[in-house]
Amino acid sequence: MKQRKSIAILSPVAWRTPPRQYGAWETVASNLAEGLVARGWDVTLFATGDSVTQAQLRSVVPTGYEEDRSVDPKVAECLHISEAFEHAEEFDLIHSHYDFMALTYSRLVHTPVLTTIHGFSSPQIMPVYEKYRDGYFVSISDSDRHPSLRYLATVYNGIDLSLYPLNDQRGGDLVFLGRIHPDKGVHLAIDVARRSGRRLIIAGIIQDDAYFREKVEPFIDGFNVSYIGPVDVEGKNKLFSQAAAVLHLNTIPERFGLVLVEANAAGVPVIAMDCGSCREVIADGQTGFVVRDISQAVEAVERTGEISPKDCRRRVEQLFSVDAMVQSYERVYAQIFEREAPKRA
Amino acid sequence: MKQRKSIAILSPVAWRTPPRQYGAWETVASNLAEGLVARGWDVTLFATGDSVTQAQLRSVVPTGYEEDRSVDPKVAECLHISEAFEHAEEFDLIHSHYDFMALTYSRLVHTPVLTTIHGFSSPQIMPVYEKYRDGYFVSISDSDRHPSLRYLATVYNGIDLSLYPLNDQRGGDLVFLGRIHPDKGVHLAIDVARRSGRRLIIAGIIQDDAYFREKVEPFIDGFNVSYIGPVDVEGKNKLFSQAAAVLHLNTIPERFGLVLVEANAAGVPVIAMDCGSCREVIADGQTGFVVRDISQAVEAVERTGEISPKDCRRRVEQLFSVDAMVQSYERVYAQIFEREAPKRA
Repeated sequence: MKQRKSIAILSPVAWRTPPRQYGAWETVASNLAEGLVARGWDVTLFATGDSVTQAQLRSVVPTGYEEDRSVDPKVAECLHISEAFEHAEEFDLIHSHYDFMALTYSRLVHTPVLTTIHGFSSPQIMPVYEKYRDGYFVSISDSDRHPSLRYLATVYNGIDLSLYPLNDQRGGDLVFLGRIHPDKGVHLAIDVARRSGRRLIIAGIIQDDAYFREKVEPFIDGFNVSYIGPVDVEGKNKLFSQAAAVLHLNTIPERFGLVLVEANAAGVPVIAMDCGSCREVIADGQTGFVVRDISQAVEAVERTGEISPKDCRRRVEQLFSVDAMVQSYERVYAQIFEREAPKRA
Repeated sequence: MKQRKSIAILSPVAWRTPPRQYGAWETVASNLAEGLVARGWDVTLFATGDSVTQAQLRSVVPTGYEEDRSVDPKVAECLHISEAFEHAEEFDLIHSHYDFMALTYSRLVHTPVLTTIHGFSSPQIMPVYEKYRDGYFVSISDSDRHPSLRYLATVYNGIDLSLYPLNDQRGGDLVFLGRIHPDKGVHLAIDVARRSGRRLIIAGIIQDDAYFREKVEPFIDGFNVSYIGPVDVEGKNKLFSQAAAVLHLNTIPERFGLVLVEANAAGVPVIAMDCGSCREVIADGQTGFVVRDISQAVEAVERTGEISPKDCRRRVEQLFSVDAMVQSYERVYAQIFEREAPKRA
């Protein structure tokens, strides 16, 4: 395949690409853009103006609307998406990491559009997917597939392994890393830590204030349970060095779970709920434990010593690295170019 | 000009077109679509599926999102707008009565797009107008023009005069008709009614609950001040037959003010604040009074007998009828077709 095809990566504009702290979709769009550049593709990244990339950056929104509340999200999204589509003719492919909105522009251009569905934000958005179901879609885990959609492939998210170096020495604490939201089961992590007699360190943005106040804050004593706010890459690595395991006891199906992979990359086992993608991302008994309830999670805490940090790292290198992701997307792109060739001939 | 050019009218999908009760933008889109059909144009109305029209109706959203709360407004808007633009090639002109979103699709089609700006819903939407400032715009009053935009014309909204028959007999009550919202000055209407010793009847949807509870409800006694909820055309005519005047003491600039015209059509004088379009719509001393404060409004109440209902009606017939509006838009369309001719040759 000719490597100099031109790819537009359409990242969200909620946060910078890559995000400073939280922002999974922007993280993946960034990793993909940089990975494609490294492998010789001509890449244009549509993202916020303050984004950092080796690709060509195009932006109409200076700062993420989550970082600058004076910006109306709908306005930012419309301006950002339309800018990419107005330049469609310059690209062989538009690869959207956007929610449903970008699809509604897709039939107005001749350039093929690939959408990585990072999540169905609500059942109310399904009418858009129903209308645009003849589009090109990628799922981020097999479990996250919607039964009514056809997908070209599942491409697992890939992380920059150099950011999360292997640390062979395990600490004794338990760590929760993620949004403070009932979906992420912070309250279950607290319960498991208490029953295990382990310290728990909680890090992440508070997305549900009432939940934090009622189900998390009352247990914070700064010793047995502590909350340290959102953390950047350095902060994550510090947490990983203290961790016996990361607890990821999600209460709704996980779509992928970047933090599981980041922990494993650093050699930290993950105790994850058997719900959604966790069983695909964590190899049960090899890179952590996939559990069905609190008592299984408490048992798993006692068995974290059985997990080899090197095994954790090795599996991430094989399945969840930027290289693995980029090569998977290259195969998807090749499929699309093959299907489009007759139309463009 | 060839009359069989094909026009797409893009109505909002907040409410049915025409709306059952409240919905000014949908009312104007409806009046224009029906008026154009009557004058021999080939008209396609993009609106909710339950809309009523003599034009060809196209819809992807069955019911207005304000009438069916299970619908996500952003999803409905994206699907609705994109549907019109995906069929752009079928039309000589797309005439959008939409907010800023439709503009972001406009450069992806070859068909010219005319936008009637029914209002700037927020200063945050201005970046969209700045980007698409080379588009075709119409203002609904001279006072509603944004200084940084170029407009083809001001076209006043037109109403179906047959819906609001002239009633030569005036009643003694004062009437407020509009959204219950501080912008509309319901509290000022109450104040004027009390100082004038007149009864006030309030009709309209409650858009600001706290305002209603604090500034309106305490004065409702069912006799001196009464609130009857939203009203349809029949309900409006009943109110007009009881009215000495309609009070329209808006606290922010009025953009056009359909209700002023409806009242005048029925022969009812309007006492309106000198703010925004009121001075364009109401001829001071002839079809009502344009006032600067409460005390001027109280004085005006005493002078409503000086206003001739026939004069009120006549001015609406001349300036604010569907026919007047349709003919103005025909002149705007002709300008656009003339400018577009070289591009399409």
